[in-house]
Amino acid sequence: MVIDAVVILSGGMDSTTLLYDLKNRGLNLIAISFEYKQKHIKEIECAKMTCKKLNVEHKILNLDVLSDVAPSSLTRNEIDIPDGHYAEDSMKQTVVPNRNMVMISLAASFAMSKKINKLYYGAHAGDHIIYPDCRKEFIDKIKEILLISDWHKVEFEAPYFNINKADIVEIGKNLNVDYSLTWTCYNGRLKACGKCGSCNERLESFKIVGMVDPIEYEYN
Amino acid sequence: MVIDAVVILSGGMDSTTLLYDLKNRGLNLIAISFEYKQKHIKEIECAKMTCKKLNVEHKILNLDVLSDVAPSSLTRNEIDIPDGHYAEDSMKQTVVPNRNMVMISLAASFAMSKKINKLYYGAHAGDHIIYPDCRKEFIDKIKEILLISDWHKVEFEAPYFNINKADIVEIGKNLNVDYSLTWTCYNGRLKACGKCGSCNERLESFKIVGMVDPIEYEYN
Repeated sequence: MVIDAVVILSGGMDSTTLLYDLKNRGLNLIAISFEYKQKHIKEIECAKMTCKKLNVEHKILNLDVLSDVAPSSLTRNEIDIPDGHYAEDSMKQTVVPNRNMVMISLAASFAMSKKINKLYYGAHAGDHIIYPDCRKEFIDKIKEILLISDWHKVEFEAPYFNINKADIVEIGKNLNVDYSLTWTCYNGRLKACGKCGSCNERLESFKIVGMVDPIEYEYN
Repeated sequence: MVIDAVVILSGGMDSTTLLYDLKNRGLNLIAISFEYKQKHIKEIECAKMTCKKLNVEHKILNLDVLSDVAPSSLTRNEIDIPDGHYAEDSMKQTVVPNRNMVMISLAASFAMSKKINKLYYGAHAGDHIIYPDCRKEFIDKIKEILLISDWHKVEFEAPYFNINKADIVEIGKNLNVDYSLTWTCYNGRLKACGKCGSCNERLESFKIVGMVDPIEYEYN
Protein backbone atom coordinates (compact mmCIF):
# COMPACT_ATOMS: atom_id res chain seq x y z
CA MET A 1 0.00 0.00 0.00
CA VAL A 2 1.35 3.43 -0.95
CA ILE A 3 1.26 5.75 2.06
CA ASP A 4 0.10 9.26 1.17
CA ALA A 5 1.03 11.04 4.36
CA VAL A 6 2.46 10.91 7.85
CA VAL A 7 0.35 12.55 10.58
CA ILE A 8 1.80 13.68 13.90
CA LEU A 9 -0.80 12.44 16.39
CA SER A 10 -0.61 13.60 20.00
CA GLY A 11 -3.87 11.96 21.02
CA GLY A 12 -5.39 15.37 21.74
CA MET A 13 -8.49 16.77 20.02
CA ASP A 14 -6.78 18.68 17.23
CA SER A 15 -4.55 15.98 15.76
CA THR A 16 -7.24 13.34 16.31
CA THR A 17 -9.74 15.41 14.34
CA LEU A 18 -7.08 15.90 11.66
CA LEU A 19 -6.59 12.13 11.43
CA TYR A 20 -10.33 11.57 10.92
CA ASP A 21 -10.42 14.43 8.43
CA LEU A 22 -7.56 13.05 6.28
CA LYS A 23 -8.89 9.50 6.50
CA ASN A 24 -12.26 10.82 5.36
CA ARG A 25 -10.54 12.36 2.31
CA GLY A 26 -9.40 8.84 1.37
CA LEU A 27 -5.71 9.17 2.24
CA ASN A 28 -3.58 6.21 3.34
CA LEU A 29 -1.89 7.33 6.54
CA ILE A 30 0.73 6.46 9.12
CA ALA A 31 0.38 8.21 12.48
CA ILE A 32 3.39 9.02 14.66
CA SER A 33 3.17 9.77 18.39
CA PHE A 34 5.95 10.75 20.78
CA GLU A 35 6.55 9.69 24.36
CA TYR A 36 8.67 12.39 26.00
CA LYS A 37 7.95 11.72 29.69
CA GLN A 38 4.87 13.96 29.45
CA LYS A 39 2.69 13.82 32.59
CA HIS A 40 -0.31 13.46 30.29
CA ILE A 41 0.92 10.14 28.88
CA LYS A 42 -2.74 9.14 28.75
CA GLU A 43 -2.82 10.97 25.42
CA ILE A 44 -0.70 8.18 23.92
CA GLU A 45 -3.24 5.55 25.02
CA CYS A 46 -5.92 7.64 23.34
CA ALA A 47 -3.84 7.90 20.16
CA LYS A 48 -3.46 4.11 20.13
CA MET A 49 -7.21 3.52 20.51
CA THR A 50 -8.07 6.02 17.78
CA CYS A 51 -5.62 4.41 15.34
CA LYS A 52 -7.06 1.00 16.11
CA LYS A 53 -10.58 2.31 15.55
CA LEU A 54 -9.65 3.96 12.23
CA ASN A 55 -7.37 1.10 11.15
CA VAL A 56 -4.37 3.42 10.77
CA GLU A 57 -0.79 2.19 11.28
CA HIS A 58 0.66 3.79 14.40
CA LYS A 59 4.30 4.34 15.34
CA ILE A 60 5.13 5.45 18.88
CA LEU A 61 8.61 6.94 19.15
CA ASN A 62 10.62 7.41 22.31
CA LEU A 63 11.78 10.98 22.88
CA ASP A 64 12.77 10.84 26.55
CA VAL A 65 15.85 12.80 25.51
CA LEU A 66 13.62 15.87 25.10
CA SER A 67 12.76 15.91 28.79
CA ASP A 68 16.48 15.67 29.61
CA VAL A 69 17.50 18.63 27.47
CA ALA A 70 14.47 20.83 28.09
CA PRO A 71 12.69 20.43 31.44
CA SER A 72 9.21 22.02 31.70
CA SER A 73 6.07 21.70 33.79
CA LEU A 74 4.78 19.20 31.20
CA THR A 75 7.48 16.68 32.06
CA ARG A 76 8.80 17.44 35.53
CA ASN A 77 6.97 16.63 38.76
CA GLU A 78 8.78 19.39 40.63
CA ILE A 79 7.20 22.03 38.35
CA ASP A 80 3.40 22.41 38.67
CA ILE A 81 1.04 22.76 35.73
CA PRO A 82 -0.48 26.27 36.00
CA ASP A 83 -4.28 26.71 36.38
CA GLY A 84 -6.09 29.38 34.38
CA HIS A 85 -6.88 30.38 30.83
CA TYR A 86 -4.99 28.93 27.85
CA ALA A 87 -3.83 32.37 26.67
CA GLU A 88 -2.48 33.52 30.06
CA ASP A 89 1.19 34.30 30.47
CA SER A 90 1.57 31.65 33.20
CA MET A 91 0.91 29.02 30.51
CA LYS A 92 4.40 29.72 29.17
CA GLN A 93 5.61 27.33 31.90
CA THR A 94 4.15 24.60 29.70
CA VAL A 95 6.42 25.44 26.78
CA VAL A 96 8.98 22.71 26.04
CA PRO A 97 11.52 24.80 24.11
CA ASN A 98 11.74 23.76 20.47
CA ARG A 99 9.59 20.68 21.07
CA ASN A 100 7.72 20.96 17.80
CA MET A 101 10.84 21.34 15.68
CA VAL A 102 12.30 18.20 17.28
CA MET A 103 9.11 16.19 16.68
CA ILE A 104 8.61 17.50 13.14
CA SER A 105 12.27 16.77 12.27
CA LEU A 106 11.93 13.16 13.36
CA ALA A 107 8.59 12.61 11.67
CA ALA A 108 10.09 14.15 8.51
CA SER A 109 13.11 11.84 8.80
CA PHE A 110 10.70 8.90 8.80
CA ALA A 111 8.75 10.27 5.82
CA MET A 112 11.96 10.89 3.85
CA SER A 113 13.27 7.45 4.64
CA LYS A 114 10.03 5.83 3.39
CA LYS A 115 9.69 8.25 0.42
CA ILE A 116 6.36 9.54 1.73
CA ASN A 117 5.54 12.95 0.28
CA LYS A 118 3.45 14.69 2.94
CA LEU A 119 3.59 15.43 6.65
CA TYR A 120 0.55 16.77 8.55
CA TYR A 121 0.53 18.64 11.84
CA GLY A 122 -2.45 19.82 13.89
CA ALA A 123 -1.40 23.25 15.25
CA HIS A 124 -4.31 25.72 15.48
CA ALA A 125 -4.86 29.45 15.94
CA GLY A 126 -5.33 29.25 19.73
CA ASP A 127 -1.77 27.98 20.15
CA HIS A 128 -0.08 31.06 18.71
CA ILE A 129 -0.01 33.28 21.77
CA ILE A 130 1.82 30.93 24.11
CA TYR A 131 3.71 28.55 21.84
CA PRO A 132 6.25 30.22 19.51
CA ASP A 133 6.58 26.98 17.56
CA CYS A 134 2.92 27.08 16.52
CA ARG A 135 3.05 30.52 14.85
CA LYS A 136 2.70 31.18 11.12
CA GLU A 137 6.36 32.22 10.70
CA PHE A 138 7.45 28.92 12.24
CA ILE A 139 5.14 26.85 10.05
CA ASP A 140 6.33 28.72 6.95
CA LYS A 141 10.02 28.11 7.73
CA ILE A 142 9.37 24.42 8.40
CA LYS A 143 7.60 24.17 5.03
CA GLU A 144 10.69 25.65 3.36
CA ILE A 145 13.27 23.57 5.18
CA LEU A 146 11.58 20.20 4.59
CA LEU A 147 11.86 20.81 0.85
CA ILE A 148 15.67 21.03 1.05
CA SER A 149 16.92 19.05 4.05
CA ASP A 150 16.92 15.73 2.18
CA TRP A 151 17.04 14.67 -1.48
CA HIS A 152 13.44 13.49 -0.98
CA LYS A 153 11.21 16.56 -0.54
CA VAL A 154 8.45 16.46 2.09
CA GLU A 155 5.48 18.82 1.88
CA PHE A 156 4.50 20.08 5.31
CA GLU A 157 0.84 20.90 5.96
CA ALA A 158 -0.86 22.46 8.99
CA PRO A 159 -4.44 22.75 7.69
CA TYR A 160 -5.98 23.94 10.99
CA PHE A 161 -3.46 26.66 11.36
CA ASN A 162 -5.95 29.52 10.87
CA ILE A 163 -8.92 28.15 12.82
CA ASN A 164 -9.53 27.80 16.54
CA LYS A 165 -10.35 24.82 18.71
CA ALA A 166 -14.12 25.35 18.53
CA ASP A 167 -13.91 25.30 14.72
CA ILE A 168 -12.03 22.02 15.00
CA VAL A 169 -14.75 20.52 17.23
CA GLU A 170 -17.29 21.64 14.62
CA ILE A 171 -15.34 19.73 11.94
CA GLY A 172 -15.09 16.74 14.29
CA LYS A 173 -18.83 16.82 14.96
CA ASN A 174 -19.52 16.35 11.25
CA LEU A 175 -16.96 13.55 11.04
CA ASN A 176 -18.32 11.75 14.13
CA VAL A 177 -14.99 11.98 15.89
CA ASP A 178 -15.01 9.92 19.08
CA TYR A 179 -13.78 12.55 21.52
CA SER A 180 -14.01 10.11 24.42
CA LEU A 181 -10.74 8.76 22.96
CA THR A 182 -8.90 12.09 23.20
CA TRP A 183 -6.96 13.59 26.09
CA THR A 184 -6.25 17.27 26.58
CA CYS A 185 -5.47 17.89 30.29
CA TYR A 186 -1.81 18.63 31.05
CA ASN A 187 -2.04 16.90 34.45
CA GLY A 188 -1.59 13.15 34.33
CA ARG A 189 -4.34 12.11 36.73
CA LEU A 190 -7.21 9.66 36.33
CA LYS A 191 -9.73 12.35 35.36
CA ALA A 192 -9.05 15.64 33.56
CA CYS A 193 -8.45 18.40 36.13
CA GLY A 194 -10.86 20.94 34.58
CA LYS A 195 -8.66 23.82 35.77
CA CYS A 196 -5.51 23.93 33.65
CA GLY A 197 -5.39 26.17 30.57
CA SER A 198 -5.69 23.19 28.31
CA CYS A 199 -8.86 21.87 30.02
CA ASN A 200 -10.39 25.34 30.01
CA GLU A 201 -9.88 25.74 26.29
CA ARG A 202 -11.33 22.29 25.61
CA LEU A 203 -14.42 22.91 27.73
CA GLU A 204 -15.04 26.31 26.11
CA SER A 205 -14.79 24.80 22.64
CA PHE A 206 -17.41 22.12 23.33
CA LYS A 207 -19.66 24.78 24.85
CA ILE A 208 -19.41 27.02 21.77
CA VAL A 209 -20.32 24.14 19.46
CA GLY A 210 -23.12 23.01 21.78
CA MET A 211 -21.75 19.54 22.34
CA VAL A 212 -21.25 17.67 25.59
CA ASP A 213 -17.63 16.73 26.26
CA PRO A 214 -17.72 12.94 26.78
CA ILE A 215 -14.75 12.73 29.17
CA GLU A 216 -14.85 12.99 32.97
CA TYR A 217 -13.53 15.93 34.96
CA GLU A 218 -12.45 16.42 38.57
CA TYR A 219 -13.90 19.93 38.46
CA ASN A 220 -16.28 21.36 35.87
CA MET B 1 29.84 30.27 34.84
CA VAL B 2 27.95 31.80 31.91
CA ILE B 3 28.03 29.47 28.93
CA ASP B 4 28.62 31.32 25.65
CA ALA B 5 27.79 28.54 23.23
CA VAL B 6 26.75 24.96 22.62
CA VAL B 7 28.89 23.00 20.14
CA ILE B 8 27.66 19.89 18.34
CA LEU B 9 30.64 17.54 18.65
CA SER B 10 30.65 14.32 16.65
CA GLY B 11 34.19 13.37 17.63
CA GLY B 12 35.30 13.69 14.01
CA MET B 13 38.00 16.07 12.80
CA ASP B 14 35.80 19.00 11.82
CA SER B 15 33.81 19.48 15.01
CA THR B 16 36.87 18.68 17.16
CA THR B 17 38.85 21.40 15.39
CA LEU B 18 35.90 23.74 15.88
CA LEU B 19 35.88 23.00 19.62
CA TYR B 20 39.60 23.85 19.90
CA ASP B 21 39.06 26.96 17.76
CA LEU B 22 36.21 28.32 19.92
CA LYS B 23 37.99 27.42 23.15
CA ASN B 24 41.03 29.29 21.80
CA ARG B 25 38.81 32.36 21.28
CA GLY B 26 38.06 32.27 25.02
CA LEU B 27 34.47 31.03 24.86
CA ASN B 28 32.87 28.99 27.65
CA LEU B 29 31.38 25.96 25.94
CA ILE B 30 29.17 22.92 26.40
CA ALA B 31 29.63 20.14 23.83
CA ILE B 32 26.77 17.84 22.81
CA SER B 33 27.27 14.45 21.13
CA PHE B 34 24.64 12.02 19.87
CA GLU B 35 24.56 8.25 20.05
CA TYR B 36 22.30 7.04 17.25
CA LYS B 37 23.49 3.43 16.88
CA GLN B 38 26.20 4.58 14.45
CA LYS B 39 28.68 1.82 13.61
CA HIS B 40 31.46 4.33 14.21
CA ILE B 41 30.51 4.74 17.89
CA LYS B 42 34.25 5.12 18.52
CA GLU B 43 33.76 8.78 17.59
CA ILE B 44 31.87 9.27 20.87
CA GLU B 45 34.84 7.92 22.86
CA CYS B 46 37.02 10.39 20.99
CA ALA B 47 34.62 13.24 21.77
CA LYS B 48 34.75 12.31 25.46
CA MET B 49 38.54 12.31 25.55
CA THR B 50 38.80 15.63 23.73
CA CYS B 51 36.34 17.27 26.15
CA LYS B 52 38.30 15.91 29.09
CA LYS B 53 41.54 17.22 27.61
CA LEU B 54 40.06 20.69 26.96
CA ASN B 55 38.08 20.75 30.21
CA VAL B 56 34.77 21.27 28.38
CA GLU B 57 31.45 20.02 29.81
CA HIS B 58 30.13 17.20 27.64
CA LYS B 59 26.57 15.94 27.24
CA ILE B 60 25.97 12.70 25.37
CA LEU B 61 22.37 12.33 24.21
CA ASN B 62 20.64 9.15 23.17
CA LEU B 63 19.10 9.30 19.71
CA ASP B 64 18.51 5.60 19.02
CA VAL B 65 15.10 6.67 17.70
CA LEU B 66 16.85 8.09 14.62
CA SER B 67 18.07 4.65 13.58
CA ASP B 68 14.52 3.33 13.99
CA VAL B 69 12.90 5.96 11.78
CA ALA B 70 15.66 6.27 9.19
CA PRO B 71 17.83 3.19 8.56
CA SER B 72 21.05 3.77 6.61
CA SER B 73 24.43 2.10 6.05
CA LEU B 74 25.75 4.17 8.97
CA THR B 75 23.52 2.38 11.47
CA ARG B 76 22.46 -0.98 10.00
CA ASN B 77 24.72 -4.02 9.78
CA GLU B 78 22.76 -5.40 6.87
CA ILE B 79 23.72 -2.36 4.73
CA ASP B 80 27.45 -2.08 3.87
CA ILE B 81 29.42 1.16 4.03
CA PRO B 82 30.49 1.91 0.43
CA ASP B 83 34.20 2.16 -0.47
CA GLY B 84 35.44 4.94 -2.73
CA HIS B 85 35.74 8.69 -2.90
CA TYR B 86 33.75 10.96 -0.55
CA ALA B 87 32.04 12.76 -3.45
CA GLU B 88 30.90 9.61 -5.26
CA ASP B 89 27.23 8.90 -5.73
CA SER B 90 27.48 5.61 -3.81
CA MET B 91 28.19 7.68 -0.68
CA LYS B 92 24.52 8.67 -0.66
CA GLN B 93 23.94 5.33 1.08
CA THR B 94 25.49 6.99 4.11
CA VAL B 95 22.84 9.71 4.28
CA VAL B 96 20.61 9.42 7.35
CA PRO B 97 17.63 11.44 6.10
CA ASN B 98 17.20 14.67 8.03
CA ARG B 99 19.78 13.64 10.63
CA ASN B 100 21.27 17.09 10.99
CA MET B 101 17.92 18.81 11.48
CA VAL B 102 17.05 16.34 14.25
CA MET B 103 20.39 16.86 16.01
CA ILE B 104 20.37 20.64 15.58
CA SER B 105 16.76 20.83 16.87
CA LEU B 106 17.67 18.96 20.04
CA ALA B 107 20.88 20.91 20.65
CA ALA B 108 18.86 24.11 20.13
CA SER B 109 16.23 22.89 22.57
CA PHE B 110 18.99 22.50 25.16
CA ALA B 111 20.43 25.95 24.40
CA MET B 112 16.97 27.57 24.62
CA SER B 113 16.22 25.83 27.87
CA LYS B 114 19.51 27.06 29.41
CA LYS B 115 19.22 30.54 27.79
CA ILE B 116 22.47 30.02 25.88
CA ASN B 117 22.69 32.34 22.87
CA LYS B 118 24.78 30.47 20.32
CA LEU B 119 24.93 27.06 18.69
CA TYR B 120 27.94 25.95 16.60
CA TYR B 121 28.05 23.23 13.99
CA GLY B 122 31.06 21.92 12.02
CA ALA B 123 29.70 21.28 8.49
CA HIS B 124 32.26 22.04 5.77
CA ALA B 125 32.36 22.55 2.00
CA GLY B 126 33.24 18.91 1.19
CA ASP B 127 29.93 17.76 2.66
CA HIS B 128 27.73 19.67 0.23
CA ILE B 129 27.67 17.24 -2.67
CA ILE B 130 26.41 14.19 -0.82
CA TYR B 131 24.62 15.56 2.25
CA PRO B 132 21.68 17.86 1.50
CA ASP B 133 21.57 18.93 5.14
CA CYS B 134 25.07 20.43 4.94
CA ARG B 135 24.28 22.84 2.07
CA LYS B 136 24.19 26.63 2.33
CA GLU B 137 20.43 26.80 1.80
CA PHE B 138 19.90 24.39 4.70
CA ILE B 139 22.24 26.29 7.02
CA ASP B 140 20.51 29.57 6.12
CA LYS B 141 17.04 28.19 6.89
CA ILE B 142 18.22 26.75 10.20
CA LYS B 143 19.65 30.16 11.11
CA GLU B 144 16.24 31.73 10.42
CA ILE B 145 14.15 29.13 12.23
CA LEU B 146 16.20 29.13 15.44
CA LEU B 147 15.47 32.82 15.83
CA ILE B 148 11.72 32.20 15.97
CA SER B 149 11.04 28.68 17.23
CA ASP B 150 11.27 29.68 20.90
CA TRP B 151 10.93 32.95 22.88
CA HIS B 152 14.68 32.66 23.48
CA LYS B 153 16.53 33.25 20.20
CA VAL B 154 19.52 31.05 19.34
CA GLU B 155 22.12 32.20 16.81
CA PHE B 156 23.28 29.33 14.64
CA GLU B 157 26.85 29.39 13.31
CA ALA B 158 28.62 27.06 10.88
CA PRO B 159 31.98 28.85 10.56
CA TYR B 160 33.68 26.16 8.41
CA PHE B 161 30.90 26.13 5.96
CA ASN B 162 32.92 27.59 3.07
CA ILE B 163 36.21 25.79 3.59
CA ASN B 164 37.24 22.20 2.93
CA LYS B 165 38.66 19.51 5.18
CA ALA B 166 42.29 20.31 4.31
CA ASP B 167 41.71 23.94 5.35
CA ILE B 168 40.30 22.63 8.63
CA VAL B 169 43.41 20.48 9.23
CA GLU B 170 45.50 23.60 8.55
CA ILE B 171 43.55 25.47 11.27
CA GLY B 172 43.94 22.46 13.57
CA LYS B 173 47.69 22.33 12.95
CA ASN B 174 48.06 25.89 14.25
CA LEU B 175 45.88 25.08 17.28
CA ASN B 176 47.78 21.86 18.08
CA VAL B 177 44.62 19.78 17.78
CA ASP B 178 45.25 16.22 18.96
CA TYR B 179 43.95 14.34 15.92
CA SER B 180 44.79 11.00 17.53
CA LEU B 181 41.58 11.66 19.52
CA THR B 182 39.36 11.97 16.44
CA TRP B 183 37.55 9.29 14.48
CA THR B 184 36.41 9.59 10.86
CA CYS B 185 35.95 6.08 9.42
CA TYR B 186 32.32 5.02 8.92
CA ASN B 187 33.13 1.39 9.70
CA GLY B 188 33.18 0.54 13.38
CA ARG B 189 36.27 -1.67 13.48
CA LEU B 190 39.38 -1.48 15.65
CA LYS B 191 41.41 0.43 13.05
CA ALA B 192 40.10 2.86 10.40
CA CYS B 193 39.41 0.97 7.16
CA GLY B 194 41.28 3.38 4.87
CA LYS B 195 38.89 2.61 2.01
CA CYS B 196 35.55 4.28 2.75
CA GLY B 197 34.83 7.75 1.38
CA SER B 198 35.27 9.26 4.80
CA CYS B 199 38.75 7.72 5.31
CA ASN B 200 39.80 8.76 1.81
CA GLU B 201 38.84 12.38 2.42
CA ARG B 202 40.67 12.40 5.77
CA LEU B 203 43.87 10.92 4.32
CA GLU B 204 43.85 13.35 1.38
CA SER B 205 43.46 16.31 3.75
CA PHE B 206 46.44 15.34 5.88
CA LYS B 207 48.50 14.83 2.70
CA ILE B 208 47.61 18.30 1.37
CA VAL B 209 48.66 19.94 4.63
CA GLY B 210 51.82 17.82 4.84
CA MET B 211 50.95 16.25 8.18
CA VAL B 212 51.03 12.61 9.19
CA ASP B 213 47.67 11.26 10.31
CA PRO B 214 48.32 9.88 13.82
CA ILE B 215 45.66 7.14 13.73
CA GLU B 216 46.12 3.55 12.52
CA TYR B 217 44.62 2.16 9.31
CA GLU B 218 43.86 -1.35 8.04
CA TYR B 219 44.82 -0.21 4.52
CA ASN B 220 46.74 2.91 3.55
